[in-house]
Amino acid sequence: MPDYPKSVQINEEGPREGFQFEKGPIPTARKIELVDALSKTGLKQIQVCSFVNPKNVPGMADAEDVVKGFTRQPGVRYTALWLNDRGLERALATGKLDVRGSIALTASETFLKRNQNRTMKENIEAQHATLRMYQERSVPVERGSIMSAFGCNFEGDIPLARVLALAQQVLDLAAEHGCTIRVFSLADTMAWATPVAIRKTVGAMREKFPQLRLALHLHDTRGMGIANAYAGLEMGVDIFDASVAGLGGCPFAAHKGAAGNVCTEDLVFLCEEMGIDTGVNLEALIEAARLAEDVVGHPLPGSIMRGGSLSSLRARPRAAA
Amino acid sequence: MPDYPKSVQINEEGPREGFQFEKGPIPTARKIELVDALSKTGLKQIQVCSFVNPKNVPGMADAEDVVKGFTRQPGVRYTALWLNDRGLERALATGKLDVRGSIALTASETFLKRNQNRTMKENIEAQHATLRMYQERSVPVERGSIMSAFGCNFEGDIPLARVLALAQQVLDLAAEHGCTIRVFSLADTMAWATPVAIRKTVGAMREKFPQLRLALHLHDTRGMGIANAYAGLEMGVDIFDASVAGLGGCPFAAHKGAAGNVCTEDLVFLCEEMGIDTGVNLEALIEAARLAEDVVGHPLPGSIMRGGSLSSLRARPRAAA
Repeated sequence: MPDYPKSVQINEEGPREGFQFEKGPIPTARKIELVDALSKTGLKQIQVCSFVNPKNVPGMADAEDVVKGFTRQPGVRYTALWLNDRGLERALATGKLDVRGSIALTASETFLKRNQNRTMKENIEAQHATLRMYQERSVPVERGSIMSAFGCNFEGDIPLARVLALAQQVLDLAAEHGCTIRVFSLADTMAWATPVAIRKTVGAMREKFPQLRLALHLHDTRGMGIANAYAGLEMGVDIFDASVAGLGGCPFAAHKGAAGNVCTEDLVFLCEEMGIDTGVNLEALIEAARLAEDVVGHPLPGSIMRGGSLSSLRARPRAAA
Repeated sequence: MPDYPKSVQINEEGPREGFQFEKGPIPTARKIELVDALSKTGLKQIQVCSFVNPKNVPGMADAEDVVKGFTRQPGVRYTALWLNDRGLERALATGKLDVRGSIALTASETFLKRNQNRTMKENIEAQHATLRMYQERSVPVERGSIMSAFGCNFEGDIPLARVLALAQQVLDLAAEHGCTIRVFSLADTMAWATPVAIRKTVGAMREKFPQLRLALHLHDTRGMGIANAYAGLEMGVDIFDASVAGLGGCPFAAHKGAAGNVCTEDLVFLCEEMGIDTGVNLEALIEAARLAEDVVGHPLPGSIMRGGSLSSLRARPRAAA
């Protein structure tokens, strides 16, 4: 049997991933209800919202109110997303979030240009600025990442050598500002990864950077999310981003959110059935997933919330055999 | 890297799996249209229909007409399902199907009683009768299988020792009638399998029965279908049953078909991206999956038909970098 980790940390990104593009409007109270439900599942990190321009992302205009409204549970780290100084300021101003910094490079320059209107060089400059921003506000930076690490709809396959070189650049960038990256995330932004690519890339990263704890951010656009997570577990990866109910995705063809993250409760199910501890109460998480579906008002892609856990079946009295 | 097979055979079961429980009615001509579309994808085996009592399965009342209507493609094996002598007679009477026999035992007696109203002992008797039926009609029997090999909603986990003992019983049963089982299918009838269970069970089967070619029949009820297939590939399994578009399943909670088979085009995508030959033209199969959705008139669970293949993206002209 492969060298599976004994436990994994799952970073819940559903509230942020999901609500940022739902056509909505979703009442703030219902967003808070979901965060509070997730807080009671045993998840140790929940990304609550993003502080971005409400003109661009109307669904996140109530970010401050969501943060104000939810109830912090001890032992849970509450995070948020921001893209610039203004966003970080807003996150800090809430006084209620666990603000940690991270820096990211993107493996596809074409995607970078289309998505952020930056060249590779400009993006490196932007990361320097980001690091200075964190230093000015004494925000710790421990996480680095590479976006579109496995492939890009515009550039195709990403050579492994490029991923390794970019990872080195991320570490160097951080070091220039006196920061040490401890967690490194590989993001399959456009869902190009397959289990073999996960094995190869994670294997090469582990070999070159044995000091790093690796994380995977997986999208399920091509149905490979759970298989890719499994390949990550085989390679000892023990941090995963995930989205309750697959929030951010939708099984409808016409829906833009078809590119959701790997589903949290499906991933928890996989881990628990493999004997890998997640600290999560799967039944409570399934309830939260059903709540998420109710909140957005349309079916979400998660499977276990429909198929049911096995522990619930194991627990019930057996029919006479 | 694990010992992946160089090529796999995928048995398409969508037309049978899907249409047997669709509320329908689906016009016969549209069923034929789907079989004809599948015939042109490079799939080498297609299960076209089941010959069962139309009172129990009204959606299959037109089985003969479907068989009469489709166009045989050279190199494709067309199969069907039947549960008794009457059904086999009907399949043979078409004169157009590749009729092969198989026998199956079920790992859960509780399920067996509920599903087929038989005890284990009665089921073994029934397999003897099945083998006699095939012999009387000179139908070759090369495939054996175990239903609910990984777990049962009523009995819970299935001990590995029971699976191995049942497999031996299947081989012995066949041998008593002069038949040699060459292909052995493990069916995850109630979607209890996870990749670790696949590895354990397939590994033990390969060790005990090195002469057998192993096949997996996987359900995706709990979202583990593709991950389980991947674990099977890691263990060298090279035959899979699958269902185009995930026919037989549906992403809606209220829909009874939530327990669909692993999706054919998602599985083909996985294999092709791993460099494993399937003989299937993925783009043609994606078109067939979209046709399947159109035929049933509701969304089906497949991912690649929405997310798109990577080869189509690799092939298009690159944006200037």
